[in-house]
Amino acid sequence: MSTRPLDPTRDARILDAVLELIAEAGYVSMTIDAVAARSGTSKATIYRRWRNKHEIALAAMTRYHGRHTSWSVDTGTFRGDLAAHTRRFAEVLNGFDGRLAVGLVQARASDPELLDELETRFSSGARLPPEVIERAVARGELSGPVDAGLFEEVVASVLFMRWMWRLPMDAGFLDHVVDDLAVPVLTAGSRAAS
Amino acid sequence: MSTRPLDPTRDARILDAVLELIAEAGYVSMTIDAVAARSGTSKATIYRRWRNKHEIALAAMTRYHGRHTSWSVDTGTFRGDLAAHTRRFAEVLNGFDGRLAVGLVQARASDPELLDELETRFSSGARLPPEVIERAVARGELSGPVDAGLFEEVVASVLFMRWMWRLPMDAGFLDHVVDDLAVPVLTAGSRAAS
Repeated sequence: MSTRPLDPTRDARILDAVLELIAEAGYVSMTIDAVAARSGTSKATIYRRWRNKHEIALAAMTRYHGRHTSWSVDTGTFRGDLAAHTRRFAEVLNGFDGRLAVGLVQARASDPELLDELETRFSSGARLPPEVIERAVARGELSGPVDAGLFEEVVASVLFMRWMWRLPMDAGFLDHVVDDLAVPVLTAGSRAAS
Repeated sequence: MSTRPLDPTRDARILDAVLELIAEAGYVSMTIDAVAARSGTSKATIYRRWRNKHEIALAAMTRYHGRHTSWSVDTGTFRGDLAAHTRRFAEVLNGFDGRLAVGLVQARASDPELLDELETRFSSGARLPPEVIERAVARGELSGPVDAGLFEEVVASVLFMRWMWRLPMDAGFLDHVVDDLAVPVLTAGSRAAS
């Protein structure tokens, strides 16, 4: 494929290639040569737009993040809402996002800014919308308000570790996360706050 | 340094070099050339003993794991015991073990056996000895027995994520992990079991 300077989809193609290569082999192994080959462009084209590997990875992450939208569901019970959000995060993790996260973790020491971007992306994937808490309080399932961030902290961490160790993330495990971890932590937080 | 075929410390030196290189640059970047240079041996010497990168990394992890011993303390209260074990795991993570874990995570797709070995090592670093639960039950702080593995599951995961994102792991954060996560989860588990 030849380089087309005015192709509006070229940047997108390059940035998609960056993320794919990070997810496949990791940030350390990702090279501008490989990005050029994968996206059908040239190194010269890439270097006219981004100065280095750090800049192009950051641009790719920022664009990718922008594609994600928040998600919310009302199942009628607090337990049901927590289970739905836990299942959804497990799906996110089992897809491209999980491989991308592992590919980027190795940048922890060399590229903290990239890790910050990943953290923003990753944590938002497990975010519990505040209305889940509000509805539970209204139904009398929680005695008062609680920081919804506790859900994200526990569920994103426990699921990520489980995924990292390649242990089964089946329905039984997800029920355990909801009943033995998420519900007790949010209930205790609610009691402490009220 | 010349190769000395009968040097009993040579294997140890080679395996230490393997772990250091994984912790510094990651498993993917670790080469037998670099291991030979770091340990002052030759590639030929290494290949006489181990067939490939996978075998030498597994041997290094197994030996390293063997150096760790379990740890236990009786502070007089359940909360105090949980805090002491949480602090200890944070120290382990902030040291060589955390860097080693991040260096090995990238082997997730290519080398599951190595990940299993890391999981064994890593989880045992956050293990809560069963006597902590027994003492809490005897003191009346817990209503009955509970799976001590819940502590390891929550604390190791939450601290690892926190460490991965390079967020502060100060006394205030560790108190939060104990009071808002570990105590509620173990207390709820104890109630559910009794």
